[in-house]
Amino acid sequence: MQGELESALAVTFRSVETIRVAVAGRTDAGVHARGQVVHCDVPSVDWEKILARGSEVPLRRLAEVLPGDLRVRAIGIAPAGFHARWSALARTYRYRVSDIPGGADPLVRYHVLHHRCRAGQRLDIDAMNAAAAALLGEHDFTAYCKKRPGASSVRTLKQLEWVREPDSDLAVMTIRADAFCHSMVRSVVGALLPVGDGRRDVDWPARLLAARLRIADVHVVAPIGLCLEHVEYPPDRDLAAQAERAKRFRGNDELTLLDD
Amino acid sequence: MQGELESALAVTFRSVETIRVAVAGRTDAGVHARGQVVHCDVPSVDWEKILARGSEVPLRRLAEVLPGDLRVRAIGIAPAGFHARWSALARTYRYRVSDIPGGADPLVRYHVLHHRCRAGQRLDIDAMNAAAAALLGEHDFTAYCKKRPGASSVRTLKQLEWVREPDSDLAVMTIRADAFCHSMVRSVVGALLPVGDGRRDVDWPARLLAARLRIADVHVVAPIGLCLEHVEYPPDRDLAAQAERAKRFRGNDELTLLDD
Repeated sequence: MQGELESALAVTFRSVETIRVAVAGRTDAGVHARGQVVHCDVPSVDWEKILARGSEVPLRRLAEVLPGDLRVRAIGIAPAGFHARWSALARTYRYRVSDIPGGADPLVRYHVLHHRCRAGQRLDIDAMNAAAAALLGEHDFTAYCKKRPGASSVRTLKQLEWVREPDSDLAVMTIRADAFCHSMVRSVVGALLPVGDGRRDVDWPARLLAARLRIADVHVVAPIGLCLEHVEYPPDRDLAAQAERAKRFRGNDELTLLDD
Repeated sequence: MQGELESALAVTFRSVETIRVAVAGRTDAGVHARGQVVHCDVPSVDWEKILARGSEVPLRRLAEVLPGDLRVRAIGIAPAGFHARWSALARTYRYRVSDIPGGADPLVRYHVLHHRCRAGQRLDIDAMNAAAAALLGEHDFTAYCKKRPGASSVRTLKQLEWVREPDSDLAVMTIRADAFCHSMVRSVVGALLPVGDGRRDVDWPARLLAARLRIADVHVVAPIGLCLEHVEYPPDRDLAAQAERAKRFRGNDELTLLDD
């Protein structure tokens, strides 16, 4: 994906040099990203001329060059101090689950997990929300992270809630944090689904968190249902300071190549 | 699709004989159907026993056997006189169009048409609705149908309107009629999109209708954006009479194998 975007940007901005992008939330294979943010330096001399006529021409050109599963929605000149990854204040992901006995709606089957409950049952949204509430705030999420040497597992969970979408009947989890360590979102889903279908009690996810130990009981659910929906940034004047702060706290993670 | 469903039903209901289904709205290749209704006779002796325990067991068994692009949402015993196709009072289809300059959202790209407008423009929903209003009611839709010898082209259009979906930013057309002749929905979309993007005037679709002549100017849009959403039936006591009436008016179409 990243390579395809970099090639398309080079074509669009008529750059002979390779264009490298920095990404707000790197995602594992199979994870979707509707609200991804990237920045890049454009070495060509033409780029200001191209953007001066508005962003529609480059957007169309990118759409022609990119594969159908990769689209650029908006393009603009970044303010000074902006870094797509390090300036970000928070990321919001959603995880979509179908628990309909007959299986997921075919039209959404590429971005929805099908979860099989016991006969006659559906996921208990209230139980999952009760369990989720205990994970909110700043914690060491070692129990929910794939171990990476030198990387911190301390994250601040700002939002974690499930809703039953009225139209689609899907169970949708929204999770928002300053950042996520590797496979953290999918591990949280993997701990909450067994609460929703009654195989684990409501306190189990909090007990895992407190143990600060990664155990095999926590299933990392499939990437298919996961989507990066939104990345938040501070006002322009705070972009550089926020980037400094984030690098100080999580800079070591850079070595680990992936977080989601 | 129909063959796969028939095989899966035979497995689910433990029938050694082939099960044949009758379908409310036959769809061209590539057209989606979220609200399809089918009926069948189940020759096995076990079927009442299987359904007596509720519909969840057969729904799960069907989900296991069917491919991922085909799902059965509900199953039940049909009332006397019911015929999925002939008892239907009306069919509702939706056609979804993305006119965002950067291309359609990847997560919906398998059921949305991307329409390219002129630079700086989007589809004009009001203009398309003004043009659509002139097509409402009972008309000979020869201009919008692929000619089939012996088949009637008279249909009653009960609803035809475009909305801009607030969340998705898609332009979505809802069309409802007693029935549709072959490729009629896709031809109507093909006549309204050029009104929306300014290449045709608002009266053009009505002039085509009045001419009662199929002309090459009407583009049959790709099936990708089309979905059968809903089929309506009368109260149980009228099912048989409605089937008789529909067969009298449109019975010849049966010879033509396809309508959408």
